Amino acid sequence: MDWNPELIEEVRKNRPLVHHITNVVTVNDCANITLSCGGAPVMADAPEEAADMTRLASALVLNIGTLNADQVETMIRAGKAANEKGIPVVLDPVGAGATTFRTETAKRLLDRIRICLLKGNAGEIATLAGGSAQVRGVDSERVEGEIRALAAKAAREWDVTVVVTGKRDLITDGSRWAEISNGHPLMGSITGTGCMGASVLAAFAAVSPDPTRAAVSALASYGVAAEQAAMQANGPASFRTALFDALAALKGETVRERARVDEGRL
Amino acid sequence: MDWNPELIEEVRKNRPLVHHITNVVTVNDCANITLSCGGAPVMADAPEEAADMTRLASALVLNIGTLNADQVETMIRAGKAANEKGIPVVLDPVGAGATTFRTETAKRLLDRIRICLLKGNAGEIATLAGGSAQVRGVDSERVEGEIRALAAKAAREWDVTVVVTGKRDLITDGSRWAEISNGHPLMGSITGTGCMGASVLAAFAAVSPDPTRAAVSALASYGVAAEQAAMQANGPASFRTALFDALAALKGETVRERARVDEGRL
Amino acid sequence: MDWNPELIEEVRKNRPLVHHITNVVTVNDCANITLSCGGAPVMADAPEEAADMTRLASALVLNIGTLNADQVETMIRAGKAANEKGIPVVLDPVGAGATTFRTETAKRLLDRIRICLLKGNAGEIATLAGGSAQVRGVDSERVEGEIRALAAKAAREWDVTVVVTGKRDLITDGSRWAEISNGHPLMGSITGTGCMGASVLAAFAAVSPDPTRAAVSALASYGVAAEQAAMQANGPASFRTALFDALAALKGETVRERARVDEGRL
Repeated sequence: MDWNPELIEEVRKNRPLVHHITNVVTVNDCANITLSCGGAPVMADAPEEAADMTRLASALVLNIGTLNADQVETMIRAGKAANEKGIPVVLDPVGAGATTFRTETAKRLLDRIRICLLKGNAGEIATLAGGSAQVRGVDSERVEGEIRALAAKAAREWDVTVVVTGKRDLITDGSRWAEISNGHPLMGSITGTGCMGASVLAAFAAVSPDPTRAAVSALASYGVAAEQAAMQANGPASFRTALFDALAALKGETVRERARVDEGRL
Repeated sequence: MDWNPELIEEVRKNRPLVHHITNVVTVNDCANITLSCGGAPVMADAPEEAADMTRLASALVLNIGTLNADQVETMIRAGKAANEKGIPVVLDPVGAGATTFRTETAKRLLDRIRICLLKGNAGEIATLAGGSAQVRGVDSERVEGEIRALAAKAAREWDVTVVVTGKRDLITDGSRWAEISNGHPLMGSITGTGCMGASVLAAFAAVSPDPTRAAVSALASYGVAAEQAAMQANGPASFRTALFDALAALKGETVRERARVDEGRL
Repeated sequence: MDWNPELIEEVRKNRPLVHHITNVVTVNDCANITLSCGGAPVMADAPEEAADMTRLASALVLNIGTLNADQVETMIRAGKAANEKGIPVVLDPVGAGATTFRTETAKRLLDRIRICLLKGNAGEIATLAGGSAQVRGVDSERVEGEIRALAAKAAREWDVTVVVTGKRDLITDGSRWAEISNGHPLMGSITGTGCMGASVLAAFAAVSPDPTRAAVSALASYGVAAEQAAMQANGPASFRTALFDALAALKGETVRERARVDEGRL
């Protein structure tokens, strides 16, 4: 598909405000990665203001990583405001499959809100698509069946673009697919690389009319930055520092040179 | 005004306990910057103990960055305990102007608690002073009118020292003013530099009888540390690491040499 | 006692899932240190799922650093699930002694749940053991009396292994004791080294039948990593980065060479 390797330059030009209702573990990382890719983060999950804040934003991230019952109501309220305004909503169903509460909440959000991008690991996506998956905590251990077929099924069922992160990232809207082979194993050595990916996806989707293509640009950029960061790293924490720095310094032309993307039609 | 460039040495000597009721995005940064400048942080926002913890502290920071209704009650309770004990209260009205909930909460706190230092960006302060401001998320975009006049108006209205952070930091108690030209653009590339500023202000105010002068010392020290950190940085995250390190190593005499402070009377 | 200096290799082989119900200040650090020592972290404190998530885990950490009333109920529910499954529970009674709410909550958790490892600083442990302590915020200022006797008393009263962190770490089950002289003063210059210690203790206890010996292995490994990190550090934040990196790279044989452990019988 005709994706733009230099979309990060548009993010920086437009500085989209990305509203997050997210978990307390990686919320700081999400704010900082939004800044590093050129967006502006805001986090507000009080029911009194979540919708108001969404109306100021250019994209919304919903992440169920440290879910509670009140937060679900706020997510629905913010999601509806985003739908009314027509801005993209990214859902990160962290830990779907690990507990019934998470699986059911993720499905409820998909039913009640028009999600633009559904991003998860293989276990989370397989769970939501009705496949057989083993999910352990919030990690994805092993997924039965062909993840591409499951992702496409989920994409068609909820009319969303599905993003499956992993060694290779898969993106599909149910008819087109792309796979990105960038990134680095050190991404699995720290918490938050998945959550941060959702922030980057949202910032890119905010400046593009096609969320599927924006997702390719976003994850290619993020993956190339991770490769550059890994060259500076002595371990997980220095990798983390280098990842923010590398993304902030990343040029569109570098993404054009280094992105490894396969694509096709289902 | 007769401010002390070496006040950071007093902070280290006294190690004031700074209690925070603050947001979940930058709470870890606030704890660490309190340590870096020589204070000791504590964060406790349960209604059962917020007042008790305040009574143990030498300063209190109230930050509405991820506000919820319960937290407002706890802030009032802790604020009243701080007023009874006579310790300084720093209010950071994050995002005032962005949503009605935030603007009204900030005003309610100013009405119900005797605030010592009110610290915000230009948009937040202009909103509270009744000026016309455009606030976008929690950033300050553009402020109509002369910020010095608005800050002085706010200072007189609530009998507080107002601190407006930005490219130049402005401090005024309604009759005196000071402007600090230290700091670095990289401070805007990470989340939390504003929130951390409030922690530093609180630690300095805790060891000084004059909050206005203490604020000059605090922001000059913080800004000089940021300049030193920027020299070590390859981007936003390495700047952040270097900022904590630089503040922890900062000598009072370095602040004396490098601070750039203008001042006058209104 | 016959402790295994190379237990970290077992942690890496087994990658135990460590569930945390913990504070918002250092939750990200706890997740990352769990990864650095070879475990897998999960944090879920909604009452709807805390017990379900515990049943998937190999150890549970309860940390009362930013306690609220709802969280206490969730901790009890998760603790009971852990006891039923027979996995180790580590309690970090942050700030016990600072406020009545914290002291009573810590005691209530000790009464209602079978705790495996009780880890605190001298002030917190002395408070719980009924000794006279001065606790200031969440720091330990000064402890009257002999901490070894108080720790042993607490160990016997609740039938737990007590871990007292400090310049020298003390571990006792009421009959055996060990003291570890590894670690570095820079650990006190950042927030979270205590909380992270609990995560490391949990990951090690998850792969060992004897929690007392596992605690010696855990804190010796953590302390040796801190010593190595200090050699790379320019201050508190670069120390923090280096600590995660050093623990992730630490070899069992290095712990064997560098651990400084005294031990005996009470």
